[in-house]
Amino acid sequence: MSKVHNFSAGPGILPLEVLKQSADACINFDNMNLSLLEISHRSKNYEAVIDESKALVKELFEVGDDYEVLFLGGGASMQFAMVPYNLLTDNGFAAYVNTGVWATKAIKESKIIGKTNVIATSEDKNFNYIPKGYEIPKDADYFHITSNNTIYGTQMKSFPKCDVPLVCDMSSDIFSRRINAKDFSLIYAGAQKNMGPAGSTMIMVKKDILGKTGRKMLSMLDYQVHIKGGSMYNTPPVFPIYVSMLTLRWLKKNGGVSWIENINQQKADLLYNEIDRNSQFVGTTAKEDRSNMNACFLLNKPELEPEFDKLWKGAGIDGIRGHRDVGGYRASMYNALPLESVQVLVDVMKAFEAKFA
Amino acid sequence: MSKVHNFSAGPGILPLEVLKQSADACINFDNMNLSLLEISHRSKNYEAVIDESKALVKELFEVGDDYEVLFLGGGASMQFAMVPYNLLTDNGFAAYVNTGVWATKAIKESKIIGKTNVIATSEDKNFNYIPKGYEIPKDADYFHITSNNTIYGTQMKSFPKCDVPLVCDMSSDIFSRRINAKDFSLIYAGAQKNMGPAGSTMIMVKKDILGKTGRKMLSMLDYQVHIKGGSMYNTPPVFPIYVSMLTLRWLKKNGGVSWIENINQQKADLLYNEIDRNSQFVGTTAKEDRSNMNACFLLNKPELEPEFDKLWKGAGIDGIRGHRDVGGYRASMYNALPLESVQVLVDVMKAFEAKFA
Repeated sequence: MSKVHNFSAGPGILPLEVLKQSADACINFDNMNLSLLEISHRSKNYEAVIDESKALVKELFEVGDDYEVLFLGGGASMQFAMVPYNLLTDNGFAAYVNTGVWATKAIKESKIIGKTNVIATSEDKNFNYIPKGYEIPKDADYFHITSNNTIYGTQMKSFPKCDVPLVCDMSSDIFSRRINAKDFSLIYAGAQKNMGPAGSTMIMVKKDILGKTGRKMLSMLDYQVHIKGGSMYNTPPVFPIYVSMLTLRWLKKNGGVSWIENINQQKADLLYNEIDRNSQFVGTTAKEDRSNMNACFLLNKPELEPEFDKLWKGAGIDGIRGHRDVGGYRASMYNALPLESVQVLVDVMKAFEAKFA
Repeated sequence: MSKVHNFSAGPGILPLEVLKQSADACINFDNMNLSLLEISHRSKNYEAVIDESKALVKELFEVGDDYEVLFLGGGASMQFAMVPYNLLTDNGFAAYVNTGVWATKAIKESKIIGKTNVIATSEDKNFNYIPKGYEIPKDADYFHITSNNTIYGTQMKSFPKCDVPLVCDMSSDIFSRRINAKDFSLIYAGAQKNMGPAGSTMIMVKKDILGKTGRKMLSMLDYQVHIKGGSMYNTPPVFPIYVSMLTLRWLKKNGGVSWIENINQQKADLLYNEIDRNSQFVGTTAKEDRSNMNACFLLNKPELEPEFDKLWKGAGIDGIRGHRDVGGYRASMYNALPLESVQVLVDVMKAFEAKFA
């Protein structure tokens, strides 16, 4: 099996046991002598998958029956549209914080639906920090934030208390740390970083915020239609949801969010300490906003990139090239990435320093 | 491996070699020492999958570069909305034929977008036939049909020539028979019957019909946005698309659409001949509209259903319970179902007759 140290920014690394169980299900799912790829989503065996997936989300988030959980296709990008379509009234407005490319896209879609105010942005410094000290309008229909920004490696370390429904794109750090989920009215996350493969998106929504716009809605964009259909209004992305369930099972079995939070902190500390210590590297983001999921860093001498690349590739590392908007390097350390992989990267950085300092 | 005769109406049976290749890719994709479930969709290895998937669709449909192919999430139900959203103008109207539950849902979404005329329907007889002899309005923005109706077991045996863009939901019989694809301006199909697992939907669209509504569109619902993004405007359903590619490869390798059309005809003839011959069964649809994909039939003595059920279950048959709207039985014979499975069902029907006639 894979000895690659997979730092891919997303779709990202999944636990080895989940990959094996996924492969098995492609051949014989749940002892049905049928592949998971060729059975009815209305079968009892698959309905159990949907039910367990939803229950695991609620358990890991510690929320009650005032919330509903959905697994839909279309990615977080579809949620950029569905959130305002379901929540933004004709006479009201939405409030957004702009922390990068994905927040910018969410804002763009919201503006197509209705009035959208950007109340804070870190665009002035290429999104290398998280805006703070803004005031959330008390009369907004909702307030939208992005908890973690993969491209720039920034992360909100705390969440504002707010009087209006708090909506959060948690695609790249969901279930990576403890949060008070009850402070949020809607959380969505494309599965493909911390909770499964590409192809399904989790939405957890507090039911009492829905149904208030009076808008006549397309069925597939209407959260209430999907809730009524038990997340199976139409054929769901069967296999991606199953793999998400396996990933959530893995998380729960090992100790849940507080367990992984601790490991994620160790991984982040290990790498950021090395970035700060090592004479050859420099971090790109404000220290207090550094993401525990995605660490972005540059070489002090960019002309040495080919040399550094040779070293990490030789060590079996994959996926640490930085996003074109930032350049340099980005090490994504999602839940399933072992501490050992970060140690390998740190060792490579030390070896690089020894050779080129 | 599975010895189940899988007549599931959908998600439906896939070729055994495709299931095995899918399982392998969950562990080690393309000799990358990484799972397909944890690699970037922007990797060269995966871009090759998207490219090949699109090329296979165009090759099997024998269309040129005036068409584009997309693989999106959301299912055919999302296309019920996207078709009118992209094609129906504020002052124009759409024309639909209603041939069942899915067409009804497509019509419902279109009515949310704009003026929608149902020019023919078979609702009067619970959709057990395909309407004929209607006139297609020459000034419609487009004309929408459903080529095969899984629930009722009806299928359009020919397609109308038409002056307006012809749009077809081909979810349940795509690539099952030769068609003149160039007569269509837009074909869509949820993959989970004849071309892959649940979670991705294929759209083939003639580019010159797009961009005419003047509507300001949500990005994820805009075909032109997805075309510009090469079907990767956002993270696509990576694994479902890969399995679709494998299924299309399997089809091409074995002889393409004319090869499978021949086998599908043999399967349908075998089963319908038995339904007509056997004193214990009766078909539910107009004979001239019988679907080669889904054969619906009833017992003449419904009180014997428990006895018939015992027989087919004992023979390793799965998934032939009829839809609740029709009752009785439905044998779905998608591309990957072997002729041998149909023979097993026919043998069971003969045995049933011998015992209970």
